[in-house]
Amino acid sequence: MDKSTRYKIFNDPIHGFITVPKGPILRLIDHPYVQRLRRIRQLGLGYLVFPAAEHSRFSHALGALELAQRVLNNLREKDTTISQPEYDGTLMAILLHDVGHGPLSHTLEHSLIQDFNHEMMSLSIMKELNREFEGELDTAISIFTNQYKKKFLHQLISSQLDLDRLDYLRRDSFFTGVSEGTVGINRILKTMRVFKGNIVIEKKGIYAIENYIIARRLMYMQVYQHKTVLSADFLLRSIFKRVRKLIDEGQSLQFPSPPLEYFLREQPSAKKQISPKMIDLYARLDDYDVYVCIKQWADADDKILADLCFRFLNRDLFRTTFLDKKPGKAFQEEMKQKTAKALKRKRLPDDDQSISHYLSFERSYSEAYKYKNESIWILEDEQAVEFSKAAETKNIIALTEPVVKHYCIHLKSITPDKSH
Amino acid sequence: MDKSTRYKIFNDPIHGFITVPKGPILRLIDHPYVQRLRRIRQLGLGYLVFPAAEHSRFSHALGALELAQRVLNNLREKDTTISQPEYDGTLMAILLHDVGHGPLSHTLEHSLIQDFNHEMMSLSIMKELNREFEGELDTAISIFTNQYKKKFLHQLISSQLDLDRLDYLRRDSFFTGVSEGTVGINRILKTMRVFKGNIVIEKKGIYAIENYIIARRLMYMQVYQHKTVLSADFLLRSIFKRVRKLIDEGQSLQFPSPPLEYFLREQPSAKKQISPKMIDLYARLDDYDVYVCIKQWADADDKILADLCFRFLNRDLFRTTFLDKKPGKAFQEEMKQKTAKALKRKRLPDDDQSISHYLSFERSYSEAYKYKNESIWILEDEQAVEFSKAAETKNIIALTEPVVKHYCIHLKSITPDKSH
Amino acid sequence: MDKSTRYKIFNDPIHGFITVPKGPILRLIDHPYVQRLRRIRQLGLGYLVFPAAEHSRFSHALGALELAQRVLNNLREKDTTISQPEYDGTLMAILLHDVGHGPLSHTLEHSLIQDFNHEMMSLSIMKELNREFEGELDTAISIFTNQYKKKFLHQLISSQLDLDRLDYLRRDSFFTGVSEGTVGINRILKTMRVFKGNIVIEKKGIYAIENYIIARRLMYMQVYQHKTVLSADFLLRSIFKRVRKLIDEGQSLQFPSPPLEYFLREQPSAKKQISPKMIDLYARLDDYDVYVCIKQWADADDKILADLCFRFLNRDLFRTTFLDKKPGKAFQEEMKQKTAKALKRKRLPDDDQSISHYLSFERSYSEAYKYKNESIWILEDEQAVEFSKAAETKNIIALTEPVVKHYCIHLKSITPDKSH
Amino acid sequence: MDKSTRYKIFNDPIHGFITVPKGPILRLIDHPYVQRLRRIRQLGLGYLVFPAAEHSRFSHALGALELAQRVLNNLREKDTTISQPEYDGTLMAILLHDVGHGPLSHTLEHSLIQDFNHEMMSLSIMKELNREFEGELDTAISIFTNQYKKKFLHQLISSQLDLDRLDYLRRDSFFTGVSEGTVGINRILKTMRVFKGNIVIEKKGIYAIENYIIARRLMYMQVYQHKTVLSADFLLRSIFKRVRKLIDEGQSLQFPSPPLEYFLREQPSAKKQISPKMIDLYARLDDYDVYVCIKQWADADDKILADLCFRFLNRDLFRTTFLDKKPGKAFQEEMKQKTAKALKRKRLPDDDQSISHYLSFERSYSEAYKYKNESIWILEDEQAVEFSKAAETKNIIALTEPVVKHYCIHLKSITPDKSH
Repeated sequence: MDKSTRYKIFNDPIHGFITVPKGPILRLIDHPYVQRLRRIRQLGLGYLVFPAAEHSRFSHALGALELAQRVLNNLREKDTTISQPEYDGTLMAILLHDVGHGPLSHTLEHSLIQDFNHEMMSLSIMKELNREFEGELDTAISIFTNQYKKKFLHQLISSQLDLDRLDYLRRDSFFTGVSEGTVGINRILKTMRVFKGNIVIEKKGIYAIENYIIARRLMYMQVYQHKTVLSADFLLRSIFKRVRKLIDEGQSLQFPSPPLEYFLREQPSAKKQISPKMIDLYARLDDYDVYVCIKQWADADDKILADLCFRFLNRDLFRTTFLDKKPGKAFQEEMKQKTAKALKRKRLPDDDQSISHYLSFERSYSEAYKYKNESIWILEDEQAVEFSKAAETKNIIALTEPVVKHYCIHLKSITPDKSH
Repeated sequence: MDKSTRYKIFNDPIHGFITVPKGPILRLIDHPYVQRLRRIRQLGLGYLVFPAAEHSRFSHALGALELAQRVLNNLREKDTTISQPEYDGTLMAILLHDVGHGPLSHTLEHSLIQDFNHEMMSLSIMKELNREFEGELDTAISIFTNQYKKKFLHQLISSQLDLDRLDYLRRDSFFTGVSEGTVGINRILKTMRVFKGNIVIEKKGIYAIENYIIARRLMYMQVYQHKTVLSADFLLRSIFKRVRKLIDEGQSLQFPSPPLEYFLREQPSAKKQISPKMIDLYARLDDYDVYVCIKQWADADDKILADLCFRFLNRDLFRTTFLDKKPGKAFQEEMKQKTAKALKRKRLPDDDQSISHYLSFERSYSEAYKYKNESIWILEDEQAVEFSKAAETKNIIALTEPVVKHYCIHLKSITPDKSH
Repeated sequence: MDKSTRYKIFNDPIHGFITVPKGPILRLIDHPYVQRLRRIRQLGLGYLVFPAAEHSRFSHALGALELAQRVLNNLREKDTTISQPEYDGTLMAILLHDVGHGPLSHTLEHSLIQDFNHEMMSLSIMKELNREFEGELDTAISIFTNQYKKKFLHQLISSQLDLDRLDYLRRDSFFTGVSEGTVGINRILKTMRVFKGNIVIEKKGIYAIENYIIARRLMYMQVYQHKTVLSADFLLRSIFKRVRKLIDEGQSLQFPSPPLEYFLREQPSAKKQISPKMIDLYARLDDYDVYVCIKQWADADDKILADLCFRFLNRDLFRTTFLDKKPGKAFQEEMKQKTAKALKRKRLPDDDQSISHYLSFERSYSEAYKYKNESIWILEDEQAVEFSKAAETKNIIALTEPVVKHYCIHLKSITPDKSH
Repeated sequence: MDKSTRYKIFNDPIHGFITVPKGPILRLIDHPYVQRLRRIRQLGLGYLVFPAAEHSRFSHALGALELAQRVLNNLREKDTTISQPEYDGTLMAILLHDVGHGPLSHTLEHSLIQDFNHEMMSLSIMKELNREFEGELDTAISIFTNQYKKKFLHQLISSQLDLDRLDYLRRDSFFTGVSEGTVGINRILKTMRVFKGNIVIEKKGIYAIENYIIARRLMYMQVYQHKTVLSADFLLRSIFKRVRKLIDEGQSLQFPSPPLEYFLREQPSAKKQISPKMIDLYARLDDYDVYVCIKQWADADDKILADLCFRFLNRDLFRTTFLDKKPGKAFQEEMKQKTAKALKRKRLPDDDQSISHYLSFERSYSEAYKYKNESIWILEDEQAVEFSKAAETKNIIALTEPVVKHYCIHLKSITPDKSH
């Protein structure tokens, strides 16, 4: 076969041409399990705030794959030995690292399966694929689960400075238009090195790392925990909570999506295992199932459900108010009464459960850099120094303190006293 | 009200901050009819070829709105009188110019309603909105239908150099990563002027126009009529044709989307009028309805339908081969026989109708610039000169000849003799 | 006059089209004093490290002018009254704020005139221009010297968040290719507001400010105080010190640039006043004078001067080593002896003065944000809060601690013990 | 030596990090002959029209070097054998292809040496370097002069689609801000291939080539032959013509630049050979010599010379008027008389020779693609087809017709009748 047809080229507005060699990796990309990611938005409901942030998990997975190719080539240039199976295994692992995400990414992660997180499903799907690919994913799975001897390969897949984060920060920044989140990916990749079996950053890359940590912080503040994103997420969870209640009460409800019906009715648990049936049905779920159900439910008999779904479809969201402190009992009670009144005015039920669909007290938590456990290491004078202790950045640590915010999600017609 | 809260700001990766004054325009943006555009991809199935081209008609409508604000401000700077109602009317018209698009943009335009195009629906929806907004859209509708006295306002909405095209060329180029389609929008907007009641381009903008026409041509060749996009479009139309056939035969079929079921079963016509019912149901349709139906139909009893839907979901597309000339009878016959054999091998029906879902002879047509009817005018020495006759660009006309290509869409296992 | 010819348009790769109305501002741009800035590189010797950072003070002055137009328009939109003379005065002041820079920007600032800084010269030149423009710069001068009643106009010209910094950070980042310095200028400009007579940032701009401060810090670390830039600056200062010595000793020396000869021979002082003669000759100086002299001096009889100039022209620079602490006596002595030996090997004089041209102990100082005196104010709940005390950024203060670094500049053949 | 120190990294705003291996190529970059290119602007006087187009030939040479690395790596990927000496030779040849450029690039090419073009000097300098590098440039010279057996290597250095053009089009477009000149370099590089010993473009790159040709045309129209650039070039040539006249007449004139004095006084010829002395002095010339002389001459006794130089320094340029046809005798005579009158009013000599410094009739010529001699070849069905004959682009040929324009350069106070 002629070389020029040995590759498939994908166009990416961020990384340019992504060249994928024909063979198992391209076959994985073409597999229904991966193609499904085209129908799951990377930022879930983020597009309701950032209109162009409509990118899918699929384009992110391709982007992370490209970064893996670049960094592995760079490391080889720097005399780190990486065999072809290790090279391919790393590509497969990064391609599939998020394959277990469900519809709308994180929002519904805990609404469909009990005792579950998406990494568990990613692993289950990888094992399933490994059977189908007759063992071709052995090394990938070993790297993904950090059982592979060369630990630095796992660190590229999952660590404080992994290719997943590098791609999604850059990608989310690009599509949201929030330029503060721009990360100098190429500089970081160029200064990565393997030192005593671990990924370290050469000293000249230290400011690129500082910028990366700050960019991460700013993306949390401005995008991932944007007020309106938080309230849209709550609305969606409210809808699913309501549906669960109606099911429990035995009310009839239409389900245009059979797999979604299965998960909501059965509420399977991942505690013991993820059964083949769960995998099969989960792999048929995507954003489309959720939207079509919500469109149907906007005409439901249950007034609360219909109202919530109508709001969702037409972006008539609740409001988020950040609070100066943890909300006290009295304040909570006052807000409940105001909500009840407002519901009554709209001729909606105003019992406690109903109120709970329209009012919530929550807190967000973000940590730009967790130096305490897994760290980013800088190579200074042939020594690996933990990033926050490196000479030039001693005081950056302050910025990496976890940020906790209390907030209240409520009807727009209510104005809470945030300092109550 | 304080000025800083009189606007809503949208972040756009292409145009930066889009500032929309509170009032009727923002209320239109928030209306369900416009919010629906968030669920319709601008490039239909283009994302199957360009993984990041997942942008919606909504972000395009906002982008075109922003360009309208810029150009109207520029024209005012150049002493063209534009009253506030005219200003707002133009913004409304450009915001709503595509509101009548159905799911997947152009692909299904003729599958849902007979004797129809999306502009008809845009107008119907605008009239509907005008009732709801109590006449606030009067000027917008007058501009949209080219009945307004100041013709240049309509030209901004719909002409060979309208804001719709300027935004979508730039936007599609941006998200596909096809840099050849990049248009210097700002230069074009800056050199627009009203001359004797029409939009003209000042002479210094002539090369920006040349570049715009070439960019348009290149986007047709590389994106809009990309081989794989053509074959994906055909597959989707095949699916809908099959469904229509099954309905005609009275076969049972599940429809998780009631509005889609209505259009496919009833096949309403827009010949006499677009009825309120048609508007209402159409306004509930988006890409999600189509995908969820296709996901359901992948399990249909009809083997052909199930096969087509499975292919669609997992991107197992047909192949497009461009032909050196119009396909002759013998060649067509040969291809049919090959297709029949291939279907048989897959244990699928191989009758003529079945074959027609797997094989098609088509032709594409594109024309980068139609100088014959509506033209682009250049202002040279205070005279408006038709672009292709302007001094510097006389020979560009050659490039604007319509391009016609014959092609065949067929199963990947078949290799047609393209010069037969 | 027709509107479209009332403006001149400049193309800028960063801000796009910069539109300047014909009249006094355009006449100022065309004035020899401002045109001179085309021949002074913005980053002095920075291009020796960042090959494409060859941009001039002229393009920066135009860029800052454009930002002034944008922010003044925004402020007017937000109901701040700005009269036309105030508008024009601010534009003039920002255009001319750096007009007093001498060749190679900062490096030679103190080598040409005693008791001097470039702001003094900027003011002198503005006054000179004001005579020529018959008082048209009255308001500009009043704003520049902070005597104008509306303090916020001065703050736009000179403060911790002025348009000068916003343009040069973005511009230097753009041309060096150091993406970590990218600043979201438009977001900052959009969120600026006048509150109680001062420029404040609306709360939604707080993260853009955080990013701006970090970007400033990173540009200091990576560009402005880059090791090689520091050593190139030292080399240039060494050359001028040597020339001064030779003049003092009465040695003959060729001066292809008469104005440069004047300043080096006469060493005028700005203590009492900047004389018209000083202004006139200073305004004829630019980078070209320096380079041509250095090219001539590369053939000088004085071996040290010739060697230093040859090194400069051919980028054979010294090395900079950052030290772990303030260099002690013994370490300094040791370095001097090593330098003397190296000079001897090259058959160059090795006396103390000669050594001082090849060896230097210095310290750099940078402070990304000086919260102690003039501050950046954030508008929170209709109160102006100092940036580092704003709710969301309390811990950023750590990052704004001044950074002091000791370093040694020395011959490449010597390897100092940095922890001595 | 550790791999990470085996390279030097340059930051480029266009191509990102440019990695150059230590060894002969880096030693060439550091050589005074190449460092000199830092002091020659790529676009000569173009920065007078495009303020940020201040980039040097040095950054362009580095950029072209980077493109060479990319394309050679790609070709190797496609199984074309390229030995290390061939690889390095190609890099050296592209790095040095423009090393023979004199001050201000093209403008003065014929003013300094008779019977000369810059390629001749590039070759002379390469040979000189080869002596110094003891034969390390043998292959480079062989490739540069097209004597090397593998012709495709020379085609990368010099052809209608060489790396020189690819870099300078992109670079000039980037720094001027003329986005119409943007070229999709990476797509072109990715689709280059060696076929029967020649560089060809794979069919999927055909639109990138079309875009490249159009971009080239647009850059000619908008940048390289911009009216004001043409008039600035004429002014500079006028200055040098005047200086030559004064020398011929034996008038005294100060020359702050000895090498420039040599070339202007001696007017050496390159007909027989380029002597070592010519090389040596030429290699000391750069833009700085020209500017410092002009600054000095602005005070010359000769009024014409002083006036021309003052205009040059302060950008008081002549005007260019494009003519509808070749200027006739009568028109020329009329313009001369008007010019004489204007000179008289300014108390400047108004004899014929003086007029010739203020008035010129010229014509420009540009050809975006010369299909007649060396061509661009497209690979269609394993056949190399000349670009303008390829199926998809038949009519592009019209756009590649040479464009000839007549124009007149004259004093701004005169308004010529362009259709006379």
